[in-house]
Amino acid sequence: MTHHTQIVDEPTLLEIAASGALEGSTRRYEKHIGEMAGVYLDDAAWRATLAENGADHLVYSVNEQKYQEGPGALTIGTSTLLPGRYGSEFAVTRGHLHQISDRAELYYCLSGKGVMLLETADGDCSAVELTPGKAVNVPGQWIHRSVNVGDEPFVTLFCYAADAGQNYGIIGDAGGMKHLVVSDGDGWTTIPNPRHRGYTREAAA
Amino acid sequence: MTHHTQIVDEPTLLEIAASGALEGSTRRYEKHIGEMAGVYLDDAAWRATLAENGADHLVYSVNEQKYQEGPGALTIGTSTLLPGRYGSEFAVTRGHLHQISDRAELYYCLSGKGVMLLETADGDCSAVELTPGKAVNVPGQWIHRSVNVGDEPFVTLFCYAADAGQNYGIIGDAGGMKHLVVSDGDGWTTIPNPRHRGYTREAAA
Repeated sequence: MTHHTQIVDEPTLLEIAASGALEGSTRRYEKHIGEMAGVYLDDAAWRATLAENGADHLVYSVNEQKYQEGPGALTIGTSTLLPGRYGSEFAVTRGHLHQISDRAELYYCLSGKGVMLLETADGDCSAVELTPGKAVNVPGQWIHRSVNVGDEPFVTLFCYAADAGQNYGIIGDAGGMKHLVVSDGDGWTTIPNPRHRGYTREAAA
Repeated sequence: MTHHTQIVDEPTLLEIAASGALEGSTRRYEKHIGEMAGVYLDDAAWRATLAENGADHLVYSVNEQKYQEGPGALTIGTSTLLPGRYGSEFAVTRGHLHQISDRAELYYCLSGKGVMLLETADGDCSAVELTPGKAVNVPGQWIHRSVNVGDEPFVTLFCYAADAGQNYGIIGDAGGMKHLVVSDGDGWTTIPNPRHRGYTREAAA
């Protein structure tokens, strides 16, 4: 994971490319295949990709601008999730609930074809397909993950309160999200994740 | 002004067109030339447009989705500012400081060519040109207004905390913003607004 952080307090131009390149960003991080252990149901398929491409094979990258720390500040950035398949399961980001769980998040698709997979600890679920020009306003309390169901990078512009934070553990503690996004002929569908043990209400509180 | 409001609490697909059309919006409002009295320096030019086009002539429209009221909620929408000139001054939105003044706002340009004019009560100022793919993260405490410096509608995608509110009065009380965006040959520039009386710190507090 590569980190580079700085804080600015003036209005700053952001140049946002459909590729996810972000001029004006203050931080970039990358997730590689070696950091995705246990994320995909088909562990053998994950290991095969790891062996073939090496642990540093890029899965997704995030460029973001966080200009200040105050309660009203917004973090704005791009997420670029490369295409991939692990058995029938499409490439995903780790997914998260916000640490301050009522914080919403905008995802606006810049390029590619993806799904925002959304679940609550109460058992609600939703899967929203995103292509360029489509967006989703992810409400507070919804655990969410990007899934690339296309052949090109799936790139989104995101925006959320800078104080929101990310709770990644809630998904790992539950044995993964309740649903998986898998191939269905030329398209995609969701199926139950047999390893899912239920979300703990404590983690979501 | 046309209002239509509803509240939803589920993740909802938004379809955002470069024209500013927003499928999934919960509210739309419009500002017409008859509602822009006192906004432009050249009052005679404003009156001439009013006489020629009628008070209902559209200046800008906003489509937005506000799905819930909580502190973490985000309002997401599009602003479409039509091209226009009043003497040398370009068409503008009313402009505002957020009622909760530390709330930031994302503006991402979808089409056209515009300027985000930004000022603080402390005397800082900035003007950021926006064309498709460019964006600005407007920090808290910055009074801001969209200006259309092109020949086509200037359309932005915006995102801000749903509790932010808008303080429009701070600009009117000051005799307008400190700067005007005016034509400069084929381009634009900013000049001091001779009617500006200074922002009151009380209004910005």
